[in-house]
Amino acid sequence: MSQQTNKTQGKLYAIGTGPGASDLITVRGARILGELDILYAPAGKKNAPSLAHTIVTPYLTAKTTVKTYHFLMKAPREAKEAVWDDVAQRILEDVAEGKKVGFITLGDTMLFSTWVSLLERIGNQPWLEIIPGVTSFAAIASRASLPLAMENQSLVVMPCTASPEALEQAIVNHECIVLMKVYGRLQQVRDLLRRHSLFEHAILMSDATLENEQCWRRLDEIDDEQTLPYFSTILINKTRK
Amino acid sequence: MSQQTNKTQGKLYAIGTGPGASDLITVRGARILGELDILYAPAGKKNAPSLAHTIVTPYLTAKTTVKTYHFLMKAPREAKEAVWDDVAQRILEDVAEGKKVGFITLGDTMLFSTWVSLLERIGNQPWLEIIPGVTSFAAIASRASLPLAMENQSLVVMPCTASPEALEQAIVNHECIVLMKVYGRLQQVRDLLRRHSLFEHAILMSDATLENEQCWRRLDEIDDEQTLPYFSTILINKTRK
Repeated sequence: MSQQTNKTQGKLYAIGTGPGASDLITVRGARILGELDILYAPAGKKNAPSLAHTIVTPYLTAKTTVKTYHFLMKAPREAKEAVWDDVAQRILEDVAEGKKVGFITLGDTMLFSTWVSLLERIGNQPWLEIIPGVTSFAAIASRASLPLAMENQSLVVMPCTASPEALEQAIVNHECIVLMKVYGRLQQVRDLLRRHSLFEHAILMSDATLENEQCWRRLDEIDDEQTLPYFSTILINKTRK
Repeated sequence: MSQQTNKTQGKLYAIGTGPGASDLITVRGARILGELDILYAPAGKKNAPSLAHTIVTPYLTAKTTVKTYHFLMKAPREAKEAVWDDVAQRILEDVAEGKKVGFITLGDTMLFSTWVSLLERIGNQPWLEIIPGVTSFAAIASRASLPLAMENQSLVVMPCTASPEALEQAIVNHECIVLMKVYGRLQQVRDLLRRHSLFEHAILMSDATLENEQCWRRLDEIDDEQTLPYFSTILINKTRK
């Protein structure tokens, strides 16, 4: 590679936006967002800005070109992979042209995040910096004053898409349990918590740290699944009521 | 309570500093630090500033009085509780006097954090705001480009002070395992990982995001426990090498 090529090498920043409130992003994330040439942001429904895009908007300047893409959440594997391939390729081209490129992802960059699918394609590069973010469950614990693990306790983070056996095992074995991806699976999770008499130790929070945040301390009081927002998480701490 | 008393009501902010680099605190945490009348910070060894204190120093102004206290990490329970009682009482007095008071804690506020011991004493108050932080393990995952859980996988966070049976069970049952509080327990953890052939999926990182950050991708290459820094964490992802 010639020296000139080295000089024009761009950079890629994968940035965790945090849970929802714009000021729960890191100082580093906010600063870098203000310096980007190009930002890759997920597109929201009906072409409205996505939550991740909305979170970072206060930090963007006119110099940044925002490129939105539709990440297919419920599509077949091949369709998802085609999007990841395409976005990874476009990012690689932008970086090769010397651009400062950002990619944003909700919560933390490395936990249940689209970014990891891009990382698999892009690889660990010297021009890549990954910036962590506050996870949704840490924000929920703070908002609800419900501690996560303490001292010798353990914390398990499970998606409700895991097998019923794995979910049950986790709930039995650990003091503190975070259940993510609750949307569409509330009934089965409630049945599980009822069997283990965990209602009094559980809360459900939706849209944590946003204006429309909701918190239920009685999971049996939620009418039906139709009312449950998409970003809903259950937190259980057996040592608290 | 008279209206005048309400007017002079102070506020308490429990602030997670994030993992170590000053700019991995949240924007909200940084802003509030600049507005405090009083900051409660842990004292470091030999009266040097603690890591949490060092992290927030760039955001403090001359108007903030810093009150350091020795939190006893290895003392008997009664001695620890006496410190928590004392600090909680002092914070309550400062808030009652109408002060804006801050309390800082490394990483996230609600996970393996001294703050929770104070929260138990202070209670959930309308004048209390808890501000989450980036956890050490999220920072380590980003720095090492080693993903935490994806899709249907689960993540477990265990302190190495847990029972050998609980540690072994967690390592067997989950795809992604974070082992905290490794310091002083490396030999037994290595024995466990060796028995389960997990060396190739594990990394150990110390002082993540700080200047003296170290990362070992071969746990069998670490000479002995004497060389291991206090802030050391092991990350295991069985689906990665």
